[in-house]
Amino acid sequence: MSKEIINVRLSDDGTAVTILDQTLLPNEIKYITLKEREELFEAIYMLRVRGAPAIGIFAAYALCVLAKQAKHESLDVFMEKIKQHSAYLDSSRPTAVNLGTQLKRMMSLAESEAQKSASAPQIVELMKCEAIHIYNEDVEMCKAISRHGMSLIKKGDGIMTQCNAGPIATSKYGTALGPIIMGQEQGLDLKAYICETRPLLQGARLTAFELVQAGVDSTLICDNMASITMSEGKVNAVFAGCDRIAANGDVANKVGTSQLAILAKHYNIPFYIFGPSTTIDKDCPTGADIEIEERNPEEIKEMFYTRPMAPKQVKAYNPAFDVTPNELITAIITETGVHKTFTNL
Amino acid sequence: MSKEIINVRLSDDGTAVTILDQTLLPNEIKYITLKEREELFEAIYMLRVRGAPAIGIFAAYALCVLAKQAKHESLDVFMEKIKQHSAYLDSSRPTAVNLGTQLKRMMSLAESEAQKSASAPQIVELMKCEAIHIYNEDVEMCKAISRHGMSLIKKGDGIMTQCNAGPIATSKYGTALGPIIMGQEQGLDLKAYICETRPLLQGARLTAFELVQAGVDSTLICDNMASITMSEGKVNAVFAGCDRIAANGDVANKVGTSQLAILAKHYNIPFYIFGPSTTIDKDCPTGADIEIEERNPEEIKEMFYTRPMAPKQVKAYNPAFDVTPNELITAIITETGVHKTFTNL
Repeated sequence: MSKEIINVRLSDDGTAVTILDQTLLPNEIKYITLKEREELFEAIYMLRVRGAPAIGIFAAYALCVLAKQAKHESLDVFMEKIKQHSAYLDSSRPTAVNLGTQLKRMMSLAESEAQKSASAPQIVELMKCEAIHIYNEDVEMCKAISRHGMSLIKKGDGIMTQCNAGPIATSKYGTALGPIIMGQEQGLDLKAYICETRPLLQGARLTAFELVQAGVDSTLICDNMASITMSEGKVNAVFAGCDRIAANGDVANKVGTSQLAILAKHYNIPFYIFGPSTTIDKDCPTGADIEIEERNPEEIKEMFYTRPMAPKQVKAYNPAFDVTPNELITAIITETGVHKTFTNL
Repeated sequence: MSKEIINVRLSDDGTAVTILDQTLLPNEIKYITLKEREELFEAIYMLRVRGAPAIGIFAAYALCVLAKQAKHESLDVFMEKIKQHSAYLDSSRPTAVNLGTQLKRMMSLAESEAQKSASAPQIVELMKCEAIHIYNEDVEMCKAISRHGMSLIKKGDGIMTQCNAGPIATSKYGTALGPIIMGQEQGLDLKAYICETRPLLQGARLTAFELVQAGVDSTLICDNMASITMSEGKVNAVFAGCDRIAANGDVANKVGTSQLAILAKHYNIPFYIFGPSTTIDKDCPTGADIEIEERNPEEIKEMFYTRPMAPKQVKAYNPAFDVTPNELITAIITETGVHKTFTNL
């Protein structure tokens, strides 16, 4: 039953990127092939591809495709052209860190090779190799996180998770979902309890899709059912991703993470955070220093903008993230290992 | 801005019942007037009127309307007729306790008066008085609960609540919402934080509607935002209703209640349960003896049956209630007072 999801793929000839259109999930599994500058931009802007690592990989591939299309009249014209393409792609989602990071990495390579008098066609080839490196590094990072995570669980365990930190947000396996999917491949027969994650239902729409595709025994619950599910002894561990880890181990992640941590503590269930070490922000001393994005109240008050679900006059508070204090976190798992103390993350 | 909601009303001449159609909330405030047997039945069955006390009042009124229509050829024929009407109304929602209780009370009165040789028209009048008593007793119960609840809060407090235990579920004020609405009338300037209460969104659709109507400063949140809202110091107390109180003070209520209690304890916020003393079930020793209704998984997987929100293949667990253990409850408030110990409820 298991079927691997290929989220982002560069064609062998480097002329197109194929992605799974995440906006259609879970109702339609549709892959789209993109070549034009505007449609590559739009795919990021419209969240057809989402998840910081996946966006970074996609942007690197997109830049390869556009570099290949650039006329090679002179090296200067070529370099000017790809610089413009990079800036254009970078403007598609200004807050996604990996987008800028990976585009910068691609442009540094191109510029350094141009200074060494490489030809435009040579640079195009080298950029393609660099993009493939970016992809492969992400796969290795996810695999390492998944392996470390698997050391924390045993056959038949029930794992609660929320939001989406899986393959379609990364290259393969994902972070928090990595040990569950890799565990399934190795016959661990895990049971996943997925919190739907309001208001945008990433748990229901994306995580449930990925885990069902991977053949994992998956049960969806509403966010207010976490306590009863834990109280019934169904949950052996809680796995969550992270958006930012402060130097003291406080973690910002999708709103609701902190309450799962509090419930887990109440029921004596270990609570684990998963993410690449690049998520650790040494310049941010504690969770209190992390600014929480507040999103449009209409996301709560309307069901995907199709139908009002609350009176017009009621206010809505819509924080996108919350902070889980380090004392509620059993361990933070990165590609470098399982960290139970956070003083030297 | 405050506007009283009249949920269920018997016309002065006793020939019709007018109700607020709760199925249209919050998008439409529509009162409908009902006279026919079938439409009275349908109003309960289709949840146009809902909330155990409100259903009880409505059923008593409905029986009055049908008794008035009954031909008065002979007392026996009349009594037979209203007995049939009562059984018919009682079959509209077999699990709503108050429905049967109040219909039984109405029929006992009619039967006792018939034995005393009252005439059919006299019995019709006495039934109308009894129904008005039922309504007024509920108003008094709600007022007493509201007054006791107000002793627990002070001007400007933030109160978190979930699901719906307000005026439209009762006669007036409600139970958990009573102190908030009465407090607003008395200028307490409370701030309400309403958990939307998935899957059926009673918080967003009903509680937000009632509190906005009452002029309360109301903010809607998703159920996974309770922790961040409490962590920001916005919440001085949590108020919840109850479906059943066990003899030891364990409380069954809408799913999610137990996790609000755990979060409140974590943040040192008092957690209060509100309900009439008829909700206390002396025959039920502890929460473990309360059976939890599990509802249709499609309620979670589909947005009100209009649009799939999760993959077809994923399972969903949909408990309608959960149990909050007594040690997490600061006090239980009934019409008899604020109970901080539960040994002699």
